[in-house]
Amino acid sequence: MQSVAIQSQQIQSHIGERVELKGHAQAVRDLGNLMFITVRDRTGCVQVVVDDKAIIAKASGLSPETAVLIKGSVVQSPQKNAPVEVRADSIEVLSGETEVPPVEISKQSKMDTLSLTAMLDYRPLTLRSPKVRAIFKVQAAIGRAFANFLTGEEFVEIHSPKIVSTGTEGGANLFKLDYFGKQAFLAQSPQFYKQMMVGAFERVFEVGPVYRAEEHDTTRHLNEYVSLDFEMGFIESEQDLIAMQIKLMKHIFAHVEETCPAELEMFGVKVPKFSTIPQLKLHEAQELLRTKLNWKPGPDTTDLDPEGERLLCQHFAEAENTDLLYLTHYPRSVRPFYAMPTADGLSHSFDLLYKGLEVTTGGQRLHKAEELIESMRMRGLDPESFTDYLQCFRYGMPPHGGLAIGLERLTKQLLGLPTVKLAVLFPRDRNRLTP
Amino acid sequence: MQSVAIQSQQIQSHIGERVELKGHAQAVRDLGNLMFITVRDRTGCVQVVVDDKAIIAKASGLSPETAVLIKGSVVQSPQKNAPVEVRADSIEVLSGETEVPPVEISKQSKMDTLSLTAMLDYRPLTLRSPKVRAIFKVQAAIGRAFANFLTGEEFVEIHSPKIVSTGTEGGANLFKLDYFGKQAFLAQSPQFYKQMMVGAFERVFEVGPVYRAEEHDTTRHLNEYVSLDFEMGFIESEQDLIAMQIKLMKHIFAHVEETCPAELEMFGVKVPKFSTIPQLKLHEAQELLRTKLNWKPGPDTTDLDPEGERLLCQHFAEAENTDLLYLTHYPRSVRPFYAMPTADGLSHSFDLLYKGLEVTTGGQRLHKAEELIESMRMRGLDPESFTDYLQCFRYGMPPHGGLAIGLERLTKQLLGLPTVKLAVLFPRDRNRLTP
Repeated sequence: MQSVAIQSQQIQSHIGERVELKGHAQAVRDLGNLMFITVRDRTGCVQVVVDDKAIIAKASGLSPETAVLIKGSVVQSPQKNAPVEVRADSIEVLSGETEVPPVEISKQSKMDTLSLTAMLDYRPLTLRSPKVRAIFKVQAAIGRAFANFLTGEEFVEIHSPKIVSTGTEGGANLFKLDYFGKQAFLAQSPQFYKQMMVGAFERVFEVGPVYRAEEHDTTRHLNEYVSLDFEMGFIESEQDLIAMQIKLMKHIFAHVEETCPAELEMFGVKVPKFSTIPQLKLHEAQELLRTKLNWKPGPDTTDLDPEGERLLCQHFAEAENTDLLYLTHYPRSVRPFYAMPTADGLSHSFDLLYKGLEVTTGGQRLHKAEELIESMRMRGLDPESFTDYLQCFRYGMPPHGGLAIGLERLTKQLLGLPTVKLAVLFPRDRNRLTP
Repeated sequence: MQSVAIQSQQIQSHIGERVELKGHAQAVRDLGNLMFITVRDRTGCVQVVVDDKAIIAKASGLSPETAVLIKGSVVQSPQKNAPVEVRADSIEVLSGETEVPPVEISKQSKMDTLSLTAMLDYRPLTLRSPKVRAIFKVQAAIGRAFANFLTGEEFVEIHSPKIVSTGTEGGANLFKLDYFGKQAFLAQSPQFYKQMMVGAFERVFEVGPVYRAEEHDTTRHLNEYVSLDFEMGFIESEQDLIAMQIKLMKHIFAHVEETCPAELEMFGVKVPKFSTIPQLKLHEAQELLRTKLNWKPGPDTTDLDPEGERLLCQHFAEAENTDLLYLTHYPRSVRPFYAMPTADGLSHSFDLLYKGLEVTTGGQRLHKAEELIESMRMRGLDPESFTDYLQCFRYGMPPHGGLAIGLERLTKQLLGLPTVKLAVLFPRDRNRLTP
């Protein structure tokens, strides 16, 4: 009897037909004279039932995760959780010899109690579990929405080098490498390059890895992460960047909602809906925190600490029903040398907080060579080390600015993950270089 | 009088109106009582004419590339090459003090005679010239088409780490770095990670940088480049990969043709049109080259040299009117340990040649742990060094394979550039680490 190759998602429209399914035997229950196999393919899962003794005998001992080719008939089933199933008349093992996996990835209750270490040590395996896959399907949707929205707004995608000769902020926290006998570094951000490209394309974006040799080992830090950057020219102030980002975030959230409804449901979350995002100046936020929100700041009074960010977002969630909040007007001293100052010593910069975590930093940049050089000198940086960067400013740069979104942080906050490490396929932190 | 902010591309629909244009003064011709300024913004160029003596006096000495805000009326012009122009009544300089650029980027004849060194040393400036910008607009279109096509084919975008603990091919040509006291490397390819992800998503793709510490300094080599990778599960042979790539390439070329007509015209090229792409086994290609095409191969008889690739493509362009050609069945010995062998000691692998240059390498992979281990041992590699990679094969991997397209090489071949270095914004080669 002929069979038609289908994906699990298509099963409803093949009732009564003989089909072929290729996938992983995600879970195997062998009841002796009856066998149930949950087969997972790229579109989802299907229940396969085997009642033929010869086939059961042959498939007996099938390890979970084995790759299989199932042939059989699509039938309606009395079971509510799997109203359509495949009655197999043939099971072919496509993998080599397989072992019983050390982690039961098909049981969410087991996955929920797995330690972070086990989750990451067995990453090639744990990445196959449905809820872990959902994280990265959402992440891919975010990336797609970011790139396609900005392309629609006449931004051009760029790829800047990650092997660089200078740090963007004076040399701290850089990974060093030997480049044919020269000292080189891994780029902390595409900052200088995306600014240079404003001179060429006016609007550019980049999706790429960035590197921070920071010793932090927290739920919010990674040593290698994906930065979603954009930079745009001919702006009036940071407000043009914020306006663009608000449209961008709406598009990203709408795209995730449209393409990943099942994934959002697995995490019991909804995407934020908003017409605008409230803004608060940093000093106003600090004032509010001190006077109304019982904040006990640490010794650094120029910025918010994580606890301050959390309290502030909690307050705005309750008072204004918003998960998103811009903080603006950071003091110049806590921003990089290229930040555009305001008349009163602050800067045209901002952070976007999302459910208590900074997911974006951005701002208007200085666009005059002489002001950049002065700002470098004020911070003890040598303009000679920035010759290439300064080149484009000597020949005319428009007022411009941009921002960077941490892809993993945005994923973490959207899905409510306990740590950003769970939003990376193969995270790199101080102690982890494998798998 | 009120003015409306427009982009240069919109000028035709504003004849008779007063407009505002923001851009770079790409070229400035000061005739004393008349001044012409070519203003470039993100959508193109507009001719601005100034006949008001006071404004000319103010704008006199304006350096090319200065960022300006022009206000004026859109008028029809007697000039054929600029049938609509802006008669300026106000010119505001937005940049700081600017210098006369050392390279006349608005004159294509000057750009054409520029040395490669000058082209790359003055990159922040040369990237602004129209024909250089065109290269990267086409490149961005290729990237967008790649990602969107594969997303439509149910591939999931991944981001794999670029800081890794092992090389994919045994340790040669790796950049080394110190990772918190441990030895680490920059990834030569996302190979292992994309294979692991086949277990999770069945179909994945990645757009990201890869690193080769090769000493070559040629028109086809880069030490950092962007690799367009995909990997897919449940294939029968390399033919499934080739079939997918043919659809992909058609989509990429169609998208470039649709979105970049002016850019293609600047280079005087058309995208290839084809219904399929011819295939030749490597040994057949060698036979043809030796017997019919007067090929004098170098000492390495297992592969083609660049001259062989060139002669072969020239022959197929003439004989079969095709710019694209697959070579298949490379000897196992010239492919990595993970290549799937054929019964006769060759491999299920292929290269795609495009106008004489390899732009893709791909193939089916071994998917059984025991066969991978045997293949490692045959090459003197220690399976212990590949523990993480082997993990996913122990728990069941489907037959799978994939390929990698060099983004810069594809761009180079499509536009007919003399060297791949011109298809990188800021290239890295043996001697170049800046800008």
